[in-house]
Amino acid sequence: MSNTDSKRVQNVNLPPEKVMHKLVSLAKRRGFIFPSSEIYEGLSSCFDYGPLGSEMKKNIKDLWWNAMTRRHQNIVGIDASIMMNPRVWEASGHVASFNDPMIDDKATKRRYRADHLIENHIEKLRRDGKDDTALKVQTAYEQASTAADLNRALYDIIIAEGIKAQDTGSGEWTEVRQFNLMFQCGMGALADKASIVYLRPETAQGIFVNFHNVRESSRMKVPFGIAQIGKAFRNEIVKGNFIFRMVEFEQMEMQYFVKPGTQAEAFEAWREERFNWYTSALGINRDKLHWYKHDKLAHYADLAYDIKFEFPFGIEEIEGIHSRTDFDLKQHQEYSGKNMEYIDQLTNERYIPYVVETSAGCDRLFLALLSDAYSEDVVDGEPRISLRFSPKVAPVKAAVLPLLKKGEMAEKAARIADDLRQLYMIQQDDAGSIGKRYRRQDEIGTPFCLTIDHETLENDTLTIRHRDTASQERISASSIREFLAAGMV
Amino acid sequence: MSNTDSKRVQNVNLPPEKVMHKLVSLAKRRGFIFPSSEIYEGLSSCFDYGPLGSEMKKNIKDLWWNAMTRRHQNIVGIDASIMMNPRVWEASGHVASFNDPMIDDKATKRRYRADHLIENHIEKLRRDGKDDTALKVQTAYEQASTAADLNRALYDIIIAEGIKAQDTGSGEWTEVRQFNLMFQCGMGALADKASIVYLRPETAQGIFVNFHNVRESSRMKVPFGIAQIGKAFRNEIVKGNFIFRMVEFEQMEMQYFVKPGTQAEAFEAWREERFNWYTSALGINRDKLHWYKHDKLAHYADLAYDIKFEFPFGIEEIEGIHSRTDFDLKQHQEYSGKNMEYIDQLTNERYIPYVVETSAGCDRLFLALLSDAYSEDVVDGEPRISLRFSPKVAPVKAAVLPLLKKGEMAEKAARIADDLRQLYMIQQDDAGSIGKRYRRQDEIGTPFCLTIDHETLENDTLTIRHRDTASQERISASSIREFLAAGMV
Repeated sequence: MSNTDSKRVQNVNLPPEKVMHKLVSLAKRRGFIFPSSEIYEGLSSCFDYGPLGSEMKKNIKDLWWNAMTRRHQNIVGIDASIMMNPRVWEASGHVASFNDPMIDDKATKRRYRADHLIENHIEKLRRDGKDDTALKVQTAYEQASTAADLNRALYDIIIAEGIKAQDTGSGEWTEVRQFNLMFQCGMGALADKASIVYLRPETAQGIFVNFHNVRESSRMKVPFGIAQIGKAFRNEIVKGNFIFRMVEFEQMEMQYFVKPGTQAEAFEAWREERFNWYTSALGINRDKLHWYKHDKLAHYADLAYDIKFEFPFGIEEIEGIHSRTDFDLKQHQEYSGKNMEYIDQLTNERYIPYVVETSAGCDRLFLALLSDAYSEDVVDGEPRISLRFSPKVAPVKAAVLPLLKKGEMAEKAARIADDLRQLYMIQQDDAGSIGKRYRRQDEIGTPFCLTIDHETLENDTLTIRHRDTASQERISASSIREFLAAGMV
Repeated sequence: MSNTDSKRVQNVNLPPEKVMHKLVSLAKRRGFIFPSSEIYEGLSSCFDYGPLGSEMKKNIKDLWWNAMTRRHQNIVGIDASIMMNPRVWEASGHVASFNDPMIDDKATKRRYRADHLIENHIEKLRRDGKDDTALKVQTAYEQASTAADLNRALYDIIIAEGIKAQDTGSGEWTEVRQFNLMFQCGMGALADKASIVYLRPETAQGIFVNFHNVRESSRMKVPFGIAQIGKAFRNEIVKGNFIFRMVEFEQMEMQYFVKPGTQAEAFEAWREERFNWYTSALGINRDKLHWYKHDKLAHYADLAYDIKFEFPFGIEEIEGIHSRTDFDLKQHQEYSGKNMEYIDQLTNERYIPYVVETSAGCDRLFLALLSDAYSEDVVDGEPRISLRFSPKVAPVKAAVLPLLKKGEMAEKAARIADDLRQLYMIQQDDAGSIGKRYRRQDEIGTPFCLTIDHETLENDTLTIRHRDTASQERISASSIREFLAAGMV
C-alpha cells in the first residue's frame, strides 16, 4: 500500500473512527451496498449488494471456492439446502442451547442481552479504577455460567449492581429469559408443531449429515474435506456495524475429516494455509490481521483460533479455525441411528473421524476488504478517494476510456471493450474529462484504465493508467489481454 | 447427439418413462444430488447438491451471470437479501393473492388443490369421450375465477360433479380455503405480528425496490437491465418430480426497463436472445425446446411466453419471458410514497418505465441439462451410460489418468493435473483398468480423458480420449491448456 514509487501521490492519514461513515456512504453512492427495502425504510440489519457489490462478492466467493475445492484433490464442494429436517438441529444442540439471555426494560420497552449489560458494567468499573468491585462482579459472572438457574444468576447480578442501560440510563428490568436464535417457519398448509422447520444458523451441519453420501459418491479417503458456501440466518437481537453482523449472512465453510490423533497436525496446516490466503490471494494488509486463541473452548472443541481483522470499529473475527473433535458426527450417529464410522480399507480400522473446521464470514470479509482498500490521497495536487483492491478482488477489472465520445476512437474503444468482456467485468466510459473519469474509476477500485486516443488510431497502442501510482505506460492494443491476465495472478 | 462419426458407438433408445428413475439413481450414486437430511429420512422436496452437482450448478450460474451482466454494457447485477420489509409483499400483491385453493379429505386427512381436482376431472371426462359434460364443467370452472366467492364456487363444482381424489378414490370434502404460499418467520425476540417477515417467493421484487439505487449509482439510462441470481421459497403443497418443483429453489432473473411503447420490440429481442442461450451457450438439444404463449395473462402482463423443455415426465417451463408493463414500479410508488419515475435527460420526458422480465429456474434447468445429456449406448460391444454435457456445463472438465499407479507416470500425471487445476475442475484417477476409468468419467460427463502412458515419458505426448465418440488422438503435453481452452468456447 505504499506509494514510494511515485512522488506525484501523497498519502492522507485517516482517523479510523471517521472511516466507517465514509465507507457506508461510498458503498451506497457507488453501488456496493444498499440498505435492503430502502424505499420502505429498510429492514433491521438487512442489506443488498448493488452492481459493484454483487460482482465483488462473487469474486470473493469464486476465489475461495477455487482455492478450497478445485485446487485440492482431496476436497470437494456441496450446496445443501437452507431448510433441513428439524432433527438435524436437535442433534447439533442448536434447539436446546443456541440461546442468548435477554432482558427487557419495562420503562423504555427496549431489549438487551443480559450478559452484555454485565460485561459492559465490569469494563466501566475497570475504566473508573474500581478494580476490586470489577473483580467481584467478574467472579460472580463466571460462577453464573455454571449455575443451576443461569437466568436467575444473571438477573441477580444486574439487580445487585444496579446496572442501567447505557443508552437510556434506565433500568426497570424484567426477568432474564433465554431466547433461541434460530428462525422458525411453518412448512405445509397448517402451521402445526410437527411441521416447524428452521432456517439453518450455520452451513456446517449440511456437511456433517452428508458425510457418507459425499464419501461414497466421490470415493474419498480420510483425510478429506467438504467445502460449502451458503446463506445462514440468526435472529440476532444485537446487530450492527453495517454488514458486519446481519441476521442473514453468507458463510464459506470447510470441514476436514481426519483420523483421531492427527487433528493437531491438520489444524496447524490449515491455520497456515487459511492465514496466507488473506494476504496472498486477497492482498489484505498483513499488519491488520491478528491471531486470537480461544482460552474458553466450546463444548465440542479441543483447539480453536480465530483470524481477526482490524476494522475501523475494532479488531473482530473474520474466520474461525476450530478443531471440533468427533462431536458432530457422534451426535448425528446417536440422533439418526446411522453408523457414522469410517472404515480404512488398508488397515481395516474403524473410527468416527475428527474434524478441523475453517469457517469464514463472506460479508465480514467483504467489509474487511472494503476498509482495507479505502484510501484518501492527493494526486498532482488534487485530493482523491481510491479503493486499492487487489485486481482479483476488484469488481471492475479495467475501464476503457475513449478520448472522444464519437467517431473512430469511440468505435475502437467499443471493440476493445467487447473483446475484453468475454473474460472480465469491464466498464466503458465516455462521460466527462479524462481526469474526472480516472477519479470515478479510482473510487470503485478499478486497477487499470485503458485510454484510447489519437495515437491509438495511428499505431494501435493505448495508454494503461495504474490506479495506485497514477502512473501511465503505453502498450500495443493486441497485448491487453495478456497484460490483464498477468495482472490477475 | 449423433454418433455417426464412429462405427464403434451404437446408440440405445430409452423410453422416457424409464429415464427419471435412472437419473435420480445416477444423481445420488455419483454425487450430483442427494435428498436433504437423508439420514433423518429427508425433508419434503428438499435436495442437496453434491460434489458434482454443486460444481455444475455453479457452472450454470456463472454462464448465465456472464451472459446477462458482464457481456452487456447496459445490464448490471445485484444480490438482494432474502428477507425484505413486509410492505414489499403488500405492494407486489403477494400478501393478498399469492394463494392456492386447498381442500381436505376428512376421511383420509389428505390435502389437495381444489383447482387441480377440477382440472383433472375435466381431462378425465374428455378421455372418456364425455365431451358435452367436459364442456359444461369447463364453463363453470372458468366462471368460478370471477365469482364473488371463489372458494364456494370451486367447492360447488366438486360436490355437483361428485369429484373424488384420484389417488384414494375417497372424497369427504371440507370447504375450500385459500392458502398463502409465502413462508413466514418472526423477526426479533417476540413473535408478534409487527415483526413478521416473509421469505421472498421470487427475486424480482428485490430488483424493483432497488430501481433508483441501481440507476443512480451506476448512472444507467433507459433501456437498461438489472440481473439477479438467488434463492426463493414457496410453501407448495403439491411438490415433486425430483428437483423440478421444490419449496426452496434458485432463480436467475433479469428485469429490463424500457420506455413505455417500446416494450414489444424489447420483448422480441429478449425472446430471441434467451432461447438462443439454451442451445448455443448450454448446448441443449434444439428439438426438446418449445415455445408456449400465454393466452390467459396475469393481471400485470401484456404479453408472456414460456420456454419449455421436454422433461421425461412432460413438457414443462424452464424460463418465462414476460412483459410486465409498469405494474410493479407503480405499485411500489403507491405503497412507498416514493416517486418511481425516470427522467430522460435529453428530452426531459418523465415516465414510469415498462419492464420486460426474463425469469429462469436454475434447478429446473439443471434437471433439463441432466436429462438432455443422459445417454445409454454400446461402445466396442460394451454398454455404457454417459452424460453428454457441453464442456462448459460439465462439472469435471478433464480427467488425468496415469497408466500406472506409481513411479514416473504417476508423477507426470500429478504435475499435469496440478497445472490444469489452476484453471479447471480436474479429476486424477489411478484406480482400476483404463477402460473402467473411462466408464466412470463417461458417467459423470467428463468430456476429455487425458491418458499418461509409456510414450508420454519418451516424447511428452499424451492421449486425449473424447467422451461421445470414444475416439482418441495424441497431442503434445505442452498444448493441453490450449486444447482445453478451445473446447470450452
